[in-house]
Amino acid sequence: MSAALLQALRAAIGPAQVLTEGDLSAYEQDWRRRWRGRALAVVRPGSTADVAAVVRACAAHGASLVPQGGNTGLVGGGVTDDSGTQVLLSLKRLDRVRAIDAANLTLTAEAGCVLQAVQEAAAAQGLLFPLSLAAEGSCTIGGNLATNAGGTQVLRFGNARELCLGLEVVTADGEVWDGLSGLRKDNTGYDLRDLFVGSEGTLGVITAATLKLYPAPAAQTTALAACATLADCVALLNLARARLGAGLTGFEVMNRFSLDLVARHFPALPQPLPGVPWTVLLEQSDTEGEAQAQARFEALLAAALESGCVSDAAVATSLAQSKAMWHLRESIPLAQSEEGLNIKHDIALPVSAIPAFCEATDAALRAAFPGARLVNFGHLGDGNLHYNVQCPEGGDARRFLAEHEPAVNAIVYDAVMAHRGSISAEHGVGELKRDELPHRKSAVAMALMMRVKRALDPANRLNPGRVLDLR
Amino acid sequence: MSAALLQALRAAIGPAQVLTEGDLSAYEQDWRRRWRGRALAVVRPGSTADVAAVVRACAAHGASLVPQGGNTGLVGGGVTDDSGTQVLLSLKRLDRVRAIDAANLTLTAEAGCVLQAVQEAAAAQGLLFPLSLAAEGSCTIGGNLATNAGGTQVLRFGNARELCLGLEVVTADGEVWDGLSGLRKDNTGYDLRDLFVGSEGTLGVITAATLKLYPAPAAQTTALAACATLADCVALLNLARARLGAGLTGFEVMNRFSLDLVARHFPALPQPLPGVPWTVLLEQSDTEGEAQAQARFEALLAAALESGCVSDAAVATSLAQSKAMWHLRESIPLAQSEEGLNIKHDIALPVSAIPAFCEATDAALRAAFPGARLVNFGHLGDGNLHYNVQCPEGGDARRFLAEHEPAVNAIVYDAVMAHRGSISAEHGVGELKRDELPHRKSAVAMALMMRVKRALDPANRLNPGRVLDLR
Repeated sequence: MSAALLQALRAAIGPAQVLTEGDLSAYEQDWRRRWRGRALAVVRPGSTADVAAVVRACAAHGASLVPQGGNTGLVGGGVTDDSGTQVLLSLKRLDRVRAIDAANLTLTAEAGCVLQAVQEAAAAQGLLFPLSLAAEGSCTIGGNLATNAGGTQVLRFGNARELCLGLEVVTADGEVWDGLSGLRKDNTGYDLRDLFVGSEGTLGVITAATLKLYPAPAAQTTALAACATLADCVALLNLARARLGAGLTGFEVMNRFSLDLVARHFPALPQPLPGVPWTVLLEQSDTEGEAQAQARFEALLAAALESGCVSDAAVATSLAQSKAMWHLRESIPLAQSEEGLNIKHDIALPVSAIPAFCEATDAALRAAFPGARLVNFGHLGDGNLHYNVQCPEGGDARRFLAEHEPAVNAIVYDAVMAHRGSISAEHGVGELKRDELPHRKSAVAMALMMRVKRALDPANRLNPGRVLDLR
Repeated sequence: MSAALLQALRAAIGPAQVLTEGDLSAYEQDWRRRWRGRALAVVRPGSTADVAAVVRACAAHGASLVPQGGNTGLVGGGVTDDSGTQVLLSLKRLDRVRAIDAANLTLTAEAGCVLQAVQEAAAAQGLLFPLSLAAEGSCTIGGNLATNAGGTQVLRFGNARELCLGLEVVTADGEVWDGLSGLRKDNTGYDLRDLFVGSEGTLGVITAATLKLYPAPAAQTTALAACATLADCVALLNLARARLGAGLTGFEVMNRFSLDLVARHFPALPQPLPGVPWTVLLEQSDTEGEAQAQARFEALLAAALESGCVSDAAVATSLAQSKAMWHLRESIPLAQSEEGLNIKHDIALPVSAIPAFCEATDAALRAAFPGARLVNFGHLGDGNLHYNVQCPEGGDARRFLAEHEPAVNAIVYDAVMAHRGSISAEHGVGELKRDELPHRKSAVAMALMMRVKRALDPANRLNPGRVLDLR
């Protein structure tokens, strides 16, 4: 059976693009090395027609397949299982920017385009593709859409979903749906696009997308502000939204412990506001220019100081200073890794609920696990926190995780649900949160999702066992 | 059978809210009097639980139902057919604003809330709910979401879809899905919300929604600009987007004939730029204030005059002048009605394709129907035109429509498809465009939509025959 499938795959896309020998770990293992599978073959189609032929061959031989982009996912949704029967479908050779329509502010790219290449293609026309996240140098736009990626510009521009106008998708039957629309308005039936976006390859294989572009801003400025409490951070957020409107493009928070870790492991990085309980990074984009942006920022921060929600602030006066402020924020995950293993959460809450959530959950965790250290940072403007738990100073991190991870998760996720939040804000479900999901979503929602899956992939061949467990 | 159903409905929500006697035409007929049905009963549930009970009663007795909001739809999607067997489900009594969370910038409203009431509830907190359209005084937010309504602020804020964070929906089985999320990020599975938004009551009954709010702008200013060609209008649009960024909240075009009709039927309305080929209405919203907004507008228009895409311009210097400019735009549909029947289209195109589309289609229509008059106006910023055809001057409009409507539609829709546009930008499909749809969408798209419908409403009880024909 598998020999016949391999033959069919080689006939469909050429033997050179059907890999079965040698070290395939770059495909079979996720980049954090948490999941390691074994594929029947890694196939590398070079066109949409190739993808359709692969899907049809798998269907004809009863095999399932796992689509993969840049393999930078965080929830184990992009690697094959260890059965040796699944086909790993790499989209990386579909890497063309097919078209840019500057007057329509759209760009059409194939799924395997690296996010940074999309950003650069837009920038070459003086335009902006605003999706931006840590993995942008290696993640692909297809993967970004399949997981509805978030990142640092969501406050202004939305998730990957909001940046997508149309899709090309290979269905579970191996048919091609050409939904590559460059339209801002189209009310001709059900929203198939948003059904595939965020479905993690379980409903269809995204092969191309038409994306929204924006005029590039004339100036971007960055500032850091010191707040005494998370409630003050929320007050600053609302002040900044009111005064800057859509000019507010970034609003990140970092608690003191997260920056202390940065100071410990990257002592050379300057910390303009050392030792404050909460540091906020604000970014403003302006269509006029540097001077105007600077003046608006200073007026905002003066008002914030006066209102009392901010105790100190630093506005970047050069591009280098701006970059250094962002670098501080981006160094937190790396500093955490240096410090040792920790229990990560990617949660979303209504912004208004965040202070109460953190107060209660911090206290519950400290009571249950004396000395536990909380790394709390993230995209406050979107209500998205990376709320991570590190073992007590000097403790054995591996042992702490092995003993306490389920109990820590239970405390955090129970509190998230009590505040009507989400246990996965931007990373998705994949394998990691699949079994948690039915406990955290209503039975009605789960049943509706099952119906959709069965309707679009009745044989359960597309990334089976991810998002939903149909067994 | 129907007697038993009526009894069940009366038991479920009380006999006073099950109407079967008297003049029910306010429910059974659409407001433009194009469709007239006959309902078994008009039911007026007062709560989500009531709606669920009605749906369950209909399911138990094999009856289908048609959800209705403000009954302001334009495609015949909200009235019962003439079989006398369908239940008309009016959502108008579900009219509470359940909550406003100012710090989270969200508002939760029941489906029957009138759009204007939602706008006013937001404004009372100094906040903005930006959805705005002609029917806002009587349409409901549930209907807006069920049809993914558009309007005049889409350029900046998106359609109803983009303004919705979460939904409460009664499923075809009469279960309640509580998806009332106030979250900006939530990647826990398939996007059920966007499946119901725009599905025109055929997949579920929307009973409440959590909506996005924005800080109210400090100032709004309006201007008119004269352009020689549609290509110049597009050039002005791109200039305005680059210079104003998200401050550009409105961009409407009007061709000369549409404003000539306004002059003929409403001669008292001032026309600041009479007799020009194309008039553009621009609206800017600013977070700083009037002076700043005025200065930005004047700089933009000076640049446009210099570049040659604009030949003349008028900036409103008072709220009254702003209102008069919008009034001109809003008077076009009324002037058309005064002039007599016409063939209406609600099309979307890539903005970059609009000049070529109009040039070719204008010529094709004039060749096929000498003397035909083209009323062309709409939301150019979204690529959405109301591209309407009026019979030759002095002709018999009724006869022109009877003889030529299918041929006119064929010319227009063929051209729309050739330019990768949509035959329904913001009005939806309903009954009006259902039979056209399979000719204008791919077989793959239609098959996927059928699968979704069968998965969520297997007995075809929710608004059957709208959007899709399952017979």
